[in-house]
Amino acid sequence: MKVAKFGGSSVANGEQIEKVGSIIADDAERKFIVVSAPGKRFPDDSKMTDLLIGLGMLGIQNEPFNHELANIMDRFSEIVNELQIPQTILADIEQSIQNVLNSDTSDQMKTDRLKSIGEDSCAKIVSEYLKTQGLNAHYVNPKEAGIIVSNDPGNAQVLPESYTKLYDMRKRDGIMVIPGFFGFTNDDRLMTFPRGGSDITGSIVAAGVEADLYENFTDVDSVYVVDPRVVNNPEKVTKLTYKEMRELSYSGFGVFHDEALMPAFQAEIPVCIKNTNNPGSPGTMIVSDKDPESRCVVGIAADTGFSNLYVSKYLMNREMGFGRKLLQILEEESISFEHAPSGIDNMSVIIRDNQLTAEKELNVINRIKNELNPETISIDYGFAMIMVVGEGMMSAVGIAEKSTAAFAEANISIEMINQGSSEVSVMFGIRKDKLDLAVKSLYNKFFQ
Amino acid sequence: MKVAKFGGSSVANGEQIEKVGSIIADDAERKFIVVSAPGKRFPDDSKMTDLLIGLGMLGIQNEPFNHELANIMDRFSEIVNELQIPQTILADIEQSIQNVLNSDTSDQMKTDRLKSIGEDSCAKIVSEYLKTQGLNAHYVNPKEAGIIVSNDPGNAQVLPESYTKLYDMRKRDGIMVIPGFFGFTNDDRLMTFPRGGSDITGSIVAAGVEADLYENFTDVDSVYVVDPRVVNNPEKVTKLTYKEMRELSYSGFGVFHDEALMPAFQAEIPVCIKNTNNPGSPGTMIVSDKDPESRCVVGIAADTGFSNLYVSKYLMNREMGFGRKLLQILEEESISFEHAPSGIDNMSVIIRDNQLTAEKELNVINRIKNELNPETISIDYGFAMIMVVGEGMMSAVGIAEKSTAAFAEANISIEMINQGSSEVSVMFGIRKDKLDLAVKSLYNKFFQ
Repeated sequence: MKVAKFGGSSVANGEQIEKVGSIIADDAERKFIVVSAPGKRFPDDSKMTDLLIGLGMLGIQNEPFNHELANIMDRFSEIVNELQIPQTILADIEQSIQNVLNSDTSDQMKTDRLKSIGEDSCAKIVSEYLKTQGLNAHYVNPKEAGIIVSNDPGNAQVLPESYTKLYDMRKRDGIMVIPGFFGFTNDDRLMTFPRGGSDITGSIVAAGVEADLYENFTDVDSVYVVDPRVVNNPEKVTKLTYKEMRELSYSGFGVFHDEALMPAFQAEIPVCIKNTNNPGSPGTMIVSDKDPESRCVVGIAADTGFSNLYVSKYLMNREMGFGRKLLQILEEESISFEHAPSGIDNMSVIIRDNQLTAEKELNVINRIKNELNPETISIDYGFAMIMVVGEGMMSAVGIAEKSTAAFAEANISIEMINQGSSEVSVMFGIRKDKLDLAVKSLYNKFFQ
Repeated sequence: MKVAKFGGSSVANGEQIEKVGSIIADDAERKFIVVSAPGKRFPDDSKMTDLLIGLGMLGIQNEPFNHELANIMDRFSEIVNELQIPQTILADIEQSIQNVLNSDTSDQMKTDRLKSIGEDSCAKIVSEYLKTQGLNAHYVNPKEAGIIVSNDPGNAQVLPESYTKLYDMRKRDGIMVIPGFFGFTNDDRLMTFPRGGSDITGSIVAAGVEADLYENFTDVDSVYVVDPRVVNNPEKVTKLTYKEMRELSYSGFGVFHDEALMPAFQAEIPVCIKNTNNPGSPGTMIVSDKDPESRCVVGIAADTGFSNLYVSKYLMNREMGFGRKLLQILEEESISFEHAPSGIDNMSVIIRDNQLTAEKELNVINRIKNELNPETISIDYGFAMIMVVGEGMMSAVGIAEKSTAAFAEANISIEMINQGSSEVSVMFGIRKDKLDLAVKSLYNKFFQ
């Protein structure tokens, strides 16, 4: 039995939903279907969820929203017409929007409820469409499915009791179409997951029903070993491990956020990333254990937007607590850090730029000066981080050599190397203007 | 004007002191002479300072010490006879030992005063010997010289006012022979420096008198680029910078402790390491600025005795303060750490084994388990660290490649790389049983 999740581009219009229909019809194992809200049809298009958020902001501030509401209904109407399913569904959708706007709940709860209408309506539409194709499909609300979440609007976490309830769904006949992105608290309040949360729903359902496979349908044929915007037509990844996926997606790999997949990973359900527009392509399998036959390095991820806070002080190494105090100052200014390599008399702290503001920076620098009396202190912007990822690379001889050779051949000096904590990756810090060059050189070294 | 310091092996017996005499006579610029206590004459010999410490322990506990005192006096007597200087100096020395043992001071102060007698007597002997060679030499007590220190027996620190007093010594005629290893507090109490402290005295005097050169005479021709016990007849270092020396000596380079040289470094006095037994050899110069013509990597240092405390926890990276709390637990158990590389979900802390006891280890592990709820925690012993040192290597392309290639060629997997904080070194962690192999391979790569 499989859980298939279809992302925003897979349900962006009627034509796409028809493809979804064939994919579902094609394999009787696809019993649990999770859908996102309709995504963009063309690059400048709006996503349904964004339209709903915009409408909500107006509604909550008692501003007129007729234009926005019409926009939303036009898109649903277009889809319903393309798919030739009963028009009554449109009145239902409009009614549910009005119900939220007229309800007597907090603004935060209104927002969460409005945001969920994209996925919810999409599940209803897909279910109706499947019926017209002769399939025994049912729209199943997350509450009915058993997705119970914490009381944390916009950032809900699944509660463990969900899994037992979801398992009961296995008994039901037919195809269950479940909207992604939200669940209900034990006292029946609707809460959304963090953005991109349809992946989370799919992953929770896959874990709960103990699926043999969780298929995540997107608009790419597979995960690539490197960002295709940097390297033309790069090699595809046919298989990678959960840990590898996590390191890759953490460091700027765009496919999806690894945390969304965690429930499936923890239940050891294999995940397959597939393309709605090319379902015949094998896609990328994400599994728990590395195939010993497969190559050691599976991908190269990169990201910009890092700064280096550098502090030096003679005999720092002898000053018990220096490193701890430095990190504590950052913590007290609510700045989280990525890495903190240290030498005898110096320490660097790598921080994502989004953690810094001019004010926080000033506070931190002043506090370090006053409390730690360093000899020098500086913040250096414009760092990029590159992660070479592969399970088992730590015990393989020569990976560090191959990587550093790639930088040398591209004439790039390495500002930072962090190897030894993660068993799955080595991290290199360079100036950001050299990033593409470095990624290309690493690609050529490991994959050409 | 030069300050010349002679170490224990240079004053171990009469024959050695004669060499010291010729060296001093050979260059009229050698005006300030600092001496250690007599060192070992042969591998199983005792150092004078250790004999004095042994004597002190007996004396303080009111145990008989005649045998030990006789031993000490025999060694001094042998030197005095070899050098044919007046025997009266021996009665002086014995009297000063008895004075300390009979004095009414604390045990700690007695120990410090006894320890200092090795250097003090040696300075008197050398000064007398130089006079017999027709030189205008004077024994100068550290108090008279102006070496004023903190009230910290066995671990005294020089006080800044020393430097002005020392500068006045320039006016004096002749050759000043100053015992190393101790100074006096402002209220006249004798305090010794940390062990090896004659280097400290030499360095303080060099800084105080603003010497053109601080010559540090030992029993090796120069600093070598790598430990000669690991690589046969390795290349000599003709010149290196203060920073390079600091990194090298920190990481197991045996020549001497860099902190001892700090006063000279801070005053930008060049230091020359020379061999009493081969004074014609140019030795190794330690200077403030890198010669741009010289090669980038100057040396490879290595040390064993490290452990890796490894902690992993899913989403550690998101948990503000995790790293700080981990370091705080170590700090509260009085464990200092060397490096702390971190990944997304894990953190390693490299600790010198001498920081750990079975009890501390248990405390730390239990506290981390209870306070931080990690998924895994382990301590892995048997790490060795290798430091490739050279100022300017960070901006040079290809140093990391060359280093990692050396490991790959020796078929050694690199457990850890720390680059990016220090501008002067890259650190590699490997299993300790591979250390010699790795050092040899790096030597071949960089120096052959």
